[in-house]
Amino acid sequence: MALGTIAYDAIESPFGKTGRILGGCATYIGLAASQFKTKCALVSVIGDDFEKKYSDLLQSRNLDLSGVEKIEGEKTFFWSGKYHNDLNTRTTLDTQLNVLTKFKPRVPESYKDASIVMLGNLDPNIQMEVLDQMQSPKLVVMDTMNFWIDSYREALNSVMAHVNVLSINDEEARQLTKTHSLVEAAQKLREMGPQYIIIKKGEHGALLFNHKKIFCAPALPLEEVFDPTGAGDSFIGGFVGYLSQRGSITFEEMKTATIIGSAMASFTVQEFGTASLESLTSDRLKQRIQAFKSLTEFEIELT
Amino acid sequence: MALGTIAYDAIESPFGKTGRILGGCATYIGLAASQFKTKCALVSVIGDDFEKKYSDLLQSRNLDLSGVEKIEGEKTFFWSGKYHNDLNTRTTLDTQLNVLTKFKPRVPESYKDASIVMLGNLDPNIQMEVLDQMQSPKLVVMDTMNFWIDSYREALNSVMAHVNVLSINDEEARQLTKTHSLVEAAQKLREMGPQYIIIKKGEHGALLFNHKKIFCAPALPLEEVFDPTGAGDSFIGGFVGYLSQRGSITFEEMKTATIIGSAMASFTVQEFGTASLESLTSDRLKQRIQAFKSLTEFEIELT
Repeated sequence: MALGTIAYDAIESPFGKTGRILGGCATYIGLAASQFKTKCALVSVIGDDFEKKYSDLLQSRNLDLSGVEKIEGEKTFFWSGKYHNDLNTRTTLDTQLNVLTKFKPRVPESYKDASIVMLGNLDPNIQMEVLDQMQSPKLVVMDTMNFWIDSYREALNSVMAHVNVLSINDEEARQLTKTHSLVEAAQKLREMGPQYIIIKKGEHGALLFNHKKIFCAPALPLEEVFDPTGAGDSFIGGFVGYLSQRGSITFEEMKTATIIGSAMASFTVQEFGTASLESLTSDRLKQRIQAFKSLTEFEIELT
Repeated sequence: MALGTIAYDAIESPFGKTGRILGGCATYIGLAASQFKTKCALVSVIGDDFEKKYSDLLQSRNLDLSGVEKIEGEKTFFWSGKYHNDLNTRTTLDTQLNVLTKFKPRVPESYKDASIVMLGNLDPNIQMEVLDQMQSPKLVVMDTMNFWIDSYREALNSVMAHVNVLSINDEEARQLTKTHSLVEAAQKLREMGPQYIIIKKGEHGALLFNHKKIFCAPALPLEEVFDPTGAGDSFIGGFVGYLSQRGSITFEEMKTATIIGSAMASFTVQEFGTASLESLTSDRLKQRIQAFKSLTEFEIELT
């Protein structure tokens, strides 16, 4: 079960500009997770302007949309942004919350006993409303961002207390803990609830922490990053999709899930929007996982 | 054979402040390289104020100092700097070139046929003078920094044309090639001469490139970085020391050498100056290499 936005995006990067395209964190999470054998429902909201071709696309990936509410007379959430030359910084050009202001998340009856709950990057109060509807999930994964850290701190803290895995980027981890060292930041984040912390470092990869181990996933060095939109969502979608297929939740499985997530993110940034994820085949995914393995494998005789 | 500075440093970091301590890139390179079975001479210059205890230290590590010129009536090169809170930026408080202004590097006769030449971070004109004295080294490794890129570009280009491995940090690679993508930057750097490029990314590890492969070495996530001085020099010292002991120069060996270098850097930053390298034992080095291996190893069944 994945909570998140389904949106229209309009994106500018140094490499070009899109019209109105499919976006939203639930979209990226769902498309990435659906690469794996998993039954996944999206919990989200759309307006009556949401095109059938996009619902069809998501359903063709076996994503259950019965938890996606359509509000008549309202428009789908819209976000427009422009990435700067280094692609690490962006300016929001326009945000139209539209249906999001009326969003009352409803988990479909048949998913209330889901074993994995993915709380996509959204208002922590809404994340909590979803969590309250779940019976007893084995794993709750939460993504968040600076906006919620700044302005919804109390609600964020409440959700974090119920979460097993927190996914957050490096700057946000530092901001939330007022700590420069990521090792210390992860420790402080764990004290807030989650047993596992994933710190995303963009082009520098990602770190996975539990109470005593650290795993370091590289990012694939790419000649060109085309559009970073959805990278973090694809990452965590691949992460939960893989764990769901495996059915086992250990640090060892999470290490591999972190690599899967990194591979998903590496595809996403190579084209605008969801284009890469839409055309992704399981063969190309396997090749890329192999590339990730080659990237860090080395031999040494420790005599 | 390693060219570089032997210096006095005075360092301030958020964790404290040193008096006048041993520094200089040749010092770090030598101390790191001497962890391996290799015959190494330092080519450098010191003043008559250079303390015997430091010469003794270097010699006790089997570093040959016959190529270190002592200039009477002159003082040893002195550098003083202050690291800011994030430890990624520093301000130079004082630079006294002293003996460096009169430095005429002389490679000892018995080292002119050395198979590995390490050109530490120094004026590229001096790097070239050393290279001119060598017979036919199998591997020339060069380190450089922004100061030489800004002001000694022509000399730098000349040296680079004769170098096999260039070690440079990410910002400098971007500056030198006017390219944001590190993959493209490495390609452009290779076109300037070196077949292998190492791009150091500080807390984010290092990348090793040849004409078609990339290796990604993580940095050890540390709770505290105490003093970054000498990290890059220790890195490259470990790199050449390991290759020298192995006697074989392939991309596979260089991958391991890059991990060795990363391990050396991880020790160096944990204490002020050379303290960590001085007390480093081969057992602790092995343990840390194992930690590096654990950091990135993962299992996946690609069915």
